[in-house]
Amino acid sequence: MPQYVGVVGPGSDAGPTDRARAREVGRLLATRGAVVLTGGLGGVMAAAADGASTAGGLSVGMLPGSDRRAGNASTVLLPTGLGELRNALLVHAADGIVAVGGSWGTLSEIALARRTGVPVVCLGGWSVLAADGTPVPIESAATAEDAVDRILAQIAASIP
Amino acid sequence: MPQYVGVVGPGSDAGPTDRARAREVGRLLATRGAVVLTGGLGGVMAAAADGASTAGGLSVGMLPGSDRRAGNASTVLLPTGLGELRNALLVHAADGIVAVGGSWGTLSEIALARRTGVPVVCLGGWSVLAADGTPVPIESAATAEDAVDRILAQIAASIP
Amino acid sequence: MPQYVGVVGPGSDAGPTDRARAREVGRLLATRGAVVLTGGLGGVMAAAADGASTAGGLSVGMLPGSDRRAGNASTVLLPTGLGELRNALLVHAADGIVAVGGSWGTLSEIALARRTGVPVVCLGGWSVLAADGTPVPIESAATAEDAVDRILAQIAASIP
Amino acid sequence: MPQYVGVVGPGSDAGPTDRARAREVGRLLATRGAVVLTGGLGGVMAAAADGASTAGGLSVGMLPGSDRRAGNASTVLLPTGLGELRNALLVHAADGIVAVGGSWGTLSEIALARRTGVPVVCLGGWSVLAADGTPVPIESAATAEDAVDRILAQIAASIP
Repeated sequence: MPQYVGVVGPGSDAGPTDRARAREVGRLLATRGAVVLTGGLGGVMAAAADGASTAGGLSVGMLPGSDRRAGNASTVLLPTGLGELRNALLVHAADGIVAVGGSWGTLSEIALARRTGVPVVCLGGWSVLAADGTPVPIESAATAEDAVDRILAQIAASIP
Repeated sequence: MPQYVGVVGPGSDAGPTDRARAREVGRLLATRGAVVLTGGLGGVMAAAADGASTAGGLSVGMLPGSDRRAGNASTVLLPTGLGELRNALLVHAADGIVAVGGSWGTLSEIALARRTGVPVVCLGGWSVLAADGTPVPIESAATAEDAVDRILAQIAASIP
Repeated sequence: MPQYVGVVGPGSDAGPTDRARAREVGRLLATRGAVVLTGGLGGVMAAAADGASTAGGLSVGMLPGSDRRAGNASTVLLPTGLGELRNALLVHAADGIVAVGGSWGTLSEIALARRTGVPVVCLGGWSVLAADGTPVPIESAATAEDAVDRILAQIAASIP
Repeated sequence: MPQYVGVVGPGSDAGPTDRARAREVGRLLATRGAVVLTGGLGGVMAAAADGASTAGGLSVGMLPGSDRRAGNASTVLLPTGLGELRNALLVHAADGIVAVGGSWGTLSEIALARRTGVPVVCLGGWSVLAADGTPVPIESAATAEDAVDRILAQIAASIP
């Protein structure tokens, strides 16, 4: 059974670095046999799905809206009609999450994953400070390859 | 863009006729290029996914629970953790529904599809009477091939 | 802890008999100390909430959309943004369901309740036939008072 | 129509300061006529519901699980069965959010609110830095009274 990895990050606001990293994360995940889950739209989501596609891998886009034609080039596109609740659905359906870049939507997915025990690795993006100003630990990667290595290792370690 | 057709029906309670019909519906849908959506479990759901697989097609199993290992042999398995709310999610994500056989869960999906304007074709299964005893019309098919012809035609006709 | 009873049925299409019955069901449930849950819109939903209000009881309207101003006169109105998925949420949140009148949306709620073991009593509305033409049993009531007696007794019997 | 304000924060891990602040926030919101929404469990959630109750106000607890008996002393308790997806439902149903204290679940709600344009005011809790180390702005309050003033003002300003 393949591993399912959500690749989350900004949509149309994503910058070129985040898009390039997401594409490489998607490509490497597909090379390693994982299925890529995204929110089905543009930016980081589209780049990750494209990357998976270039390596002949499977990707699933879970759209917030009801129109499949709004979706990216994922292998499978599912219009959920759930709005931003689909973020929580994506986290639930994934074995692990790679977050590329920072946005409020991305942070909601990182936070839900951490809340529910789903492994997360961040590649760039925002950081979080506790009330006393100390950093709240989040596993971070330096490169796309490092992120993929780390998330697949974490998933493998989390399987009972 | 492929058509997405949900194949719904009883799980482990499904009889051999319903399973055989579901397998044939799944196979024919894949032959026609459609993606098969199911609830990810056994009976009609597993048979439809198997049928799609024999024709080299794609299937997606949307599981009610949180454990992917409970799923059938779909190409992609998504544990939603939504319980029976995933029935409504499946109907929402589909362009049309083929219902094979009768059960309360199946009827919930037929009713939600009718409520929300998603085309439905039934192959066997339950029927519904209005308060005055007259039948509430539901499109029915005589064979798996007839069901697939009808649902794909209805979906094609419903696209704006 | 009060009992929570969903009152489901047609919205703006509801006829005067269904509305009158729903109002009486809501009133009697409130008199008996139950909280009334509805889908938050018009017809049977609004009548049940109004009935609860006349007896000084609490009602909760779970709206499909995102605008609270579309809601009826429930004590509490929750815009879910879930569309028809809120039907499943309503059934899940209720200890039992009274269905007044027939429609596809109503049938989806009856079917989900039966699928998930939530007690249901019908007051008028549609009936269901199995594939062999025999009726699928659904508990039916003759009057609003009978429906309330039956659902509260069923809920009491279902508590472990 | 009353304003609906979600009060979110840590559950059983909440410290005495967060609980005391949440109680005061709940009390003041009820005094001002608002309905208090919480996640239905302990800690900050229970304290906010208790506070609303001492002022004779209404509170709604949206539970992640399926057992109403796990809920706090809210006026109305709704077992959603959605797990942590109920965080997104709470944010959607609220006109504004007061976050008291910090946790991953709380941060998921703050982030979803910011993502979807729901006003948020934080009272203590975590802070967020962008990739370049600059703070991502979040409206913060110094006291419970300040938080309630700010959120009700923001909601009033956001109504078209």
